[in-house]
Amino acid sequence: MRADVILFASGSNGKELQNKAAVVIDVLRASTTIITALTNGCQAIIPAIDVTEAGELARRLGGNCVLGGERNAQKIEGFQLGNSPLEYTTEAVGGQTIVLTTTNGTKAIRMTSGASQVLVASFANIEAIVKQLAAQDMDVSLICAGRNGGFSFEDTACAGAIIEALKPDYLTDSARMAHIIYKSGACNSEALIAVSEHAEYLKSIGLEADIEFCARMNWTEIIP
Amino acid sequence: MRADVILFASGSNGKELQNKAAVVIDVLRASTTIITALTNGCQAIIPAIDVTEAGELARRLGGNCVLGGERNAQKIEGFQLGNSPLEYTTEAVGGQTIVLTTTNGTKAIRMTSGASQVLVASFANIEAIVKQLAAQDMDVSLICAGRNGGFSFEDTACAGAIIEALKPDYLTDSARMAHIIYKSGACNSEALIAVSEHAEYLKSIGLEADIEFCARMNWTEIIP
Repeated sequence: MRADVILFASGSNGKELQNKAAVVIDVLRASTTIITALTNGCQAIIPAIDVTEAGELARRLGGNCVLGGERNAQKIEGFQLGNSPLEYTTEAVGGQTIVLTTTNGTKAIRMTSGASQVLVASFANIEAIVKQLAAQDMDVSLICAGRNGGFSFEDTACAGAIIEALKPDYLTDSARMAHIIYKSGACNSEALIAVSEHAEYLKSIGLEADIEFCARMNWTEIIP
Repeated sequence: MRADVILFASGSNGKELQNKAAVVIDVLRASTTIITALTNGCQAIIPAIDVTEAGELARRLGGNCVLGGERNAQKIEGFQLGNSPLEYTTEAVGGQTIVLTTTNGTKAIRMTSGASQVLVASFANIEAIVKQLAAQDMDVSLICAGRNGGFSFEDTACAGAIIEALKPDYLTDSARMAHIIYKSGACNSEALIAVSEHAEYLKSIGLEADIEFCARMNWTEIIP
């Protein structure tokens, strides 16, 4: 099995995903939020590319949904939920369909349309993701959502954690790099997230609790 | 001083380079070739985006130039020189103007037009580059040429070597990553280059000598 890492979704058109399993990673916070919502019993999550599309999807669903998402890490006006996984409790999302739009994560999911399979990963479900990937004989592309059109340290570290557990036969340059990044932090997800630019920003707007939650490893078997 | 790394030139439009010193890195092989040619007494190197533009530039110069470059790492038909630094000897390039077109390196140089200053680096001139950058009070953007529109391990390792010597006050996520990559290889440029996909390819077409030459550190003071 060959593993590749796409270092930021906006730098790719997704053409290289044919016949591959694509794993979308947006640790802070979209993929952790999606995984948390599904673990807490939400029925479905529909990714929307922007606020307009999210509104249209909600209208088509006849209002039978919860609108969630962020811009600049803040809840969008008129939306019920933001992008903090801590908001996506059983009380808030149990049995609901969620239309979600985030700056990087939902865009990364949408660019995977050419892949044979699309999974969503964060530190929360690495063991489950690796178990599923290992049971298949398919090349894997780990897609870091990135941040503001660029590289994101915490997503790359998470891709490296998947590579560490998956042990693919061949690593591309970017996969080798992600693996080194993960091991450089002594495989400590909390420490790796803490040094990232995005964690610094979330901390500056009072969202420390989200950072801590997103660093917790392997507490769910859910694979979106 | 703040240091950023652009992980591959094609993923950027160069807008973020305003008021910065831009350092273009294409270890295998364009930046090493440019540095070697200038060390060996060539008069000037003009980067051309493609073979057509290279031909036009040569016509405008009235033939008073040497055409150099590669596609798929091989010399271009009708060109005098390829992209191996070993070809750019004093005998071949002394006193000459060179029009050079390579797959990634010359494109990376061209996207830096908005920067306050543009330097070209490889392992060959790191000390000289760092000396010049340290003497200025300007943020630095290290631009990895990359490979086939994507990430390249050896360019990132070289960016990390510059960061290790420069010791900037602030590292972006990608700069932190490059620094980790360099240190992961025990700061051994030969070992870092050897594991890269591009080195693997060059080896497969018999260009081992180029790989070895491009790994040599700090043998020239030339800063293109």
